[in-house]
Amino acid sequence: MINDEEVFVETFPRELTQNPLRKIWVPCKNGLPEKHISQRRVCMTNCPTLIVTVGLPARGKTYISKKLTRYLNWIGVPTKEFNVGQYRRECVKIYKSFEFFRPDNEEGLKIRRQCALAALNDVRQYLSVEGGQVAVFDATNTTRERRGTIIKFAEQNGFKVFFVESVCEDPDVIAENIVQVKLGSPDYIDCNTEEAIEDFMKRIKCYETSYQTLDEVLDRDLSYIKIMDVGRRYLVNRVLDHIQSRIVYYLMNIHITPRSIYLCRHGESDLNIMGRIGGDSGLSARGKEFAKCLRKFIQDQNIKDLRVWTSQMKRTIQTAEALGAPYEQWKSLNEIDASYEDLVQRLEPVIMELERQENVLVICHQAVMRCLLAYFLDKTADELPYLKCPLHTVLKLTPVAYGCKVESVCLTVEAVNTHRDRPENVNISHMAEEAVFTVPAHL
Amino acid sequence: MINDEEVFVETFPRELTQNPLRKIWVPCKNGLPEKHISQRRVCMTNCPTLIVTVGLPARGKTYISKKLTRYLNWIGVPTKEFNVGQYRRECVKIYKSFEFFRPDNEEGLKIRRQCALAALNDVRQYLSVEGGQVAVFDATNTTRERRGTIIKFAEQNGFKVFFVESVCEDPDVIAENIVQVKLGSPDYIDCNTEEAIEDFMKRIKCYETSYQTLDEVLDRDLSYIKIMDVGRRYLVNRVLDHIQSRIVYYLMNIHITPRSIYLCRHGESDLNIMGRIGGDSGLSARGKEFAKCLRKFIQDQNIKDLRVWTSQMKRTIQTAEALGAPYEQWKSLNEIDASYEDLVQRLEPVIMELERQENVLVICHQAVMRCLLAYFLDKTADELPYLKCPLHTVLKLTPVAYGCKVESVCLTVEAVNTHRDRPENVNISHMAEEAVFTVPAHL
Repeated sequence: MINDEEVFVETFPRELTQNPLRKIWVPCKNGLPEKHISQRRVCMTNCPTLIVTVGLPARGKTYISKKLTRYLNWIGVPTKEFNVGQYRRECVKIYKSFEFFRPDNEEGLKIRRQCALAALNDVRQYLSVEGGQVAVFDATNTTRERRGTIIKFAEQNGFKVFFVESVCEDPDVIAENIVQVKLGSPDYIDCNTEEAIEDFMKRIKCYETSYQTLDEVLDRDLSYIKIMDVGRRYLVNRVLDHIQSRIVYYLMNIHITPRSIYLCRHGESDLNIMGRIGGDSGLSARGKEFAKCLRKFIQDQNIKDLRVWTSQMKRTIQTAEALGAPYEQWKSLNEIDASYEDLVQRLEPVIMELERQENVLVICHQAVMRCLLAYFLDKTADELPYLKCPLHTVLKLTPVAYGCKVESVCLTVEAVNTHRDRPENVNISHMAEEAVFTVPAHL
Repeated sequence: MINDEEVFVETFPRELTQNPLRKIWVPCKNGLPEKHISQRRVCMTNCPTLIVTVGLPARGKTYISKKLTRYLNWIGVPTKEFNVGQYRRECVKIYKSFEFFRPDNEEGLKIRRQCALAALNDVRQYLSVEGGQVAVFDATNTTRERRGTIIKFAEQNGFKVFFVESVCEDPDVIAENIVQVKLGSPDYIDCNTEEAIEDFMKRIKCYETSYQTLDEVLDRDLSYIKIMDVGRRYLVNRVLDHIQSRIVYYLMNIHITPRSIYLCRHGESDLNIMGRIGGDSGLSARGKEFAKCLRKFIQDQNIKDLRVWTSQMKRTIQTAEALGAPYEQWKSLNEIDASYEDLVQRLEPVIMELERQENVLVICHQAVMRCLLAYFLDKTADELPYLKCPLHTVLKLTPVAYGCKVESVCLTVEAVNTHRDRPENVNISHMAEEAVFTVPAHL
């Protein structure tokens, strides 16, 4: 309800002025722009959100934390993860054994509590001072008491809390997690595999007796998602806002089945040769040659159930046609003619579907490929326009542990270079006349 | 895996030809375009999906079915609902009493089974012949046996099944549902309120003894969402594809709290007066007058916690400034310069957030407003460009029963007319020379 008395401290309507870089209208006062107005793309939450993981060791909490952080940053929500294990490793330089985690180890308990507090302090700094919007607090948080402390901390600071619990009883999945992730941990650097596995299993035991899962009745007032059996089942309670529903949506789409994603651009086009961008031309002779090599490459990879996606532009469809296999056209994969920022929004459904699928080959365009790559390799919006995605080169992305292994395969068919390096001077003082000199002679 | 022997029944790569209307490249054979290639926007599922509601009467099954159908159609997935109650009403013209639903009423049981089969037959026709992609089978389906029959039916026809169960024990919510929805049903047209409520309560009782809720163990192989206490809690099991995760995402965002959504365009702009579209001009004198009237109108509505959203264009921000209340800018609400089809994708997050919110005033643009309106009023993509959204008029949308009440409030500030009627001849034989004559003289 608009109330004259309360709101009208100044005269409305205010004059508007446009931010020349971001093309956004803001009110001005005495000729100066007012404080930045909250904008939807950037500000999806009214107050910052603290995501808190819950679960025994080796249940994929860090995997989920890192993946969620990468996704939220990619869609434009400033997010950072705070891994309590890392604080512990910084505090206690040398890890000896599971004994540290025993519930009767007073010294260990004290240090772990201190580390959790230090991490929460950094969370506060990030969300209250540094402009972060989501913090992911990655720890076991297996007791209701510990979670209560975090809820109190959040209330005092005006943060919303959303719990993400991972419950898994499948011994194979737990063993796989230990082998894939824990053996590479600094904790086990001087250990052989068997010793490490044995120690880690004992570490899990240390938490088991005091573990209190999120409960439908006792925790009915909390907002949470409980992921059961690696995404086979979910319990979702009290989703409070859009960002929480978005997190749930994302978590329901990811999986951990091994697979690879292949990204490449169309073969060289006639307009590429002429050094022109845009348009909807067909492949050049060398572009057609690339398409043939791509077919050979894909055959040699011997991939089970490969899906092939293209944009709706002639050059990607022509490239896919050479494979002689079914493919799907995505309008969202078309090359942009506006800003990279729009691209993230347009590609979000593509990323969601890529997360769902197993092996996929995506034949697309330079800007689109950079934007997809930024998601998989966790690159900032700032770095995105300068990622190298040359023609006639396939990038093979294979998820490993907490990231992606990237293999770049150049199919040795010559093509023009369409890359532009980041100009050295990109601040606003950069004059139009200077900018002209940073444009490469031949795109 | 690409296999030479299996796939190469014809020569690849095939030649491409472009569909002139949809601007989509398709392979051609002997000079003729090949059968339409599956496209992502339209084809989100590989095989059709049958959504099956589960729950006692008055648990919002029809509300959910209708809302989901409207949403899926709006995002471009052809969807239709099949309400077994309606088949029953067509079969048994005059409803006498709850006795019809008694579990020991052999005649009633037989008729109800026939109606369910007739509905499933129509589902098959819709999904297998008419090109539908999602069918919503709206009935109680409260027994495991009945659900088994449906699963078998779906298997035989190659449909995926996704169950949506609504569980609610809150007597107030059930009573509200009966008053809001059931009293208006043709079943109770000749009844007084008390009689109708009493009969309906007995009808619910008829189902209670045999009701078997979806069970975490017994139904662990099924794909389903169980909505508990009107969206306070959800159990989600085996989400199998993108469309299912999208349905879950949508169901987590809707609510039934009474509220209104106000849609209007910016005040008349300088470019409106000149009959030009596009650009980023400010308000005309009459446009500013409208902004003042809008303020008065909104004050008179006396709305609790109204949120105000604008686009990032000057004319909507200027309009909002006159309200003297906080507002949020959405880039997604900017006017289009491309096709209406892109608009749905861009506005999807806006709709999702509108579903979450309570009272909202959206100040936007003609095409954007038409697209939002198409969602709320269930208009087809075909009708969308011709919906009437004049300047200086507020549309107040209030959810009632299964739809939206619309009030159109003209704030009686004159403005130019920016509407164009649908041309009479819109098929491909329509020549460019003729088309010129259908363009209004002014704008």
